[in-house]
Amino acid sequence: MATVVAEMTMSLDGFVTHPVDGVEHLFGWYEDGDVETRTPGAGGPDAFRTSAASAGYLREMMASLGAIVSGRRLFDVAGGWGGSHPLGVPVVVVSHSVPDGWPRDGAPFTFVDDVATAVEQASAIADDGIVGVGGANVAQQCLDLGLLDEVRVNLVPVMLGEGVRFFEHFARTPIFFETPRVIEGDGVTHLSYRYAR
Amino acid sequence: MATVVAEMTMSLDGFVTHPVDGVEHLFGWYEDGDVETRTPGAGGPDAFRTSAASAGYLREMMASLGAIVSGRRLFDVAGGWGGSHPLGVPVVVVSHSVPDGWPRDGAPFTFVDDVATAVEQASAIADDGIVGVGGANVAQQCLDLGLLDEVRVNLVPVMLGEGVRFFEHFARTPIFFETPRVIEGDGVTHLSYRYAR
Repeated sequence: MATVVAEMTMSLDGFVTHPVDGVEHLFGWYEDGDVETRTPGAGGPDAFRTSAASAGYLREMMASLGAIVSGRRLFDVAGGWGGSHPLGVPVVVVSHSVPDGWPRDGAPFTFVDDVATAVEQASAIADDGIVGVGGANVAQQCLDLGLLDEVRVNLVPVMLGEGVRFFEHFARTPIFFETPRVIEGDGVTHLSYRYAR
Repeated sequence: MATVVAEMTMSLDGFVTHPVDGVEHLFGWYEDGDVETRTPGAGGPDAFRTSAASAGYLREMMASLGAIVSGRRLFDVAGGWGGSHPLGVPVVVVSHSVPDGWPRDGAPFTFVDDVATAVEQASAIADDGIVGVGGANVAQQCLDLGLLDEVRVNLVPVMLGEGVRFFEHFARTPIFFETPRVIEGDGVTHLSYRYAR
């Protein structure tokens, strides 16, 4: 059975995007280090350049990743990754409409209109691997629906002051997690929280 | 010179209090463990009962703590700790008025009406030790005024959904910190962030 994991890079004050310069401050750890981790897909960067600890974290995740569930907004912002997600796995996009020009031959992207179906389809693709859930809104819906097994936070030591929060608008709280697994990178702390059932 | 440290126990979604049951979910790690750490002061609990890792964290902090700066609300909620803070050090309370019945003989509490003066007085008391800043509002003011050397977050694996946030309403962002020191407790992760100057 697949393990469904929402992973986001988040500022210390809880933001995953910023209206002006958040990308620069949040995602520096992906390219500031000495250890290169090649990405299997054609879209996005060819490689991440991180600390050794972050490289270990990324490689372990990439080795078991089987499929991705993406929100429509993330898909649009990324330009559909040119039809080849950098992490090299099929992508199920949650969208009320199929974007113009999609689906494309040779691009393993499917479009479904609700989160539960997206997770189900992605889980079938991933088999015993990981389904990665991307986009704050889709991750929140998964958490509300009890579809997530794990939340991974790449916590960056900056306060942005504004932006979109990873964790808000939940239908039911409190939500309990187990004590996290911690991997200490350089300029980022990787915290993996299993949902406490 | 004293080191000025704001320390708060915070939920994964950023809250340090909750209108109904946050105390129970946030502060369980102080009393759920096997290792006892006696508190030197008469107010509050006689001891913390935590994991060994958290006990090490608490003992190190208590060994170097020289004074506390507290907001008025925290002082009121705690009933002035009966005149003896559990951590056994003098307390400088930021308050526009001196509360009825204070100051008291034998109780090392002083009352000043602005944060900068409070930190200055507490630093003089602490000498080369730590000044602990308590209360989200006072911590935010200290950060805005550039008075903090370090932020310590005891991050608890629960999402509360509502309450008072530790990190918001900053005058200027982004605010940068160094990669944190991490101590992994049971049901809590201690993250110590030095201000990047």
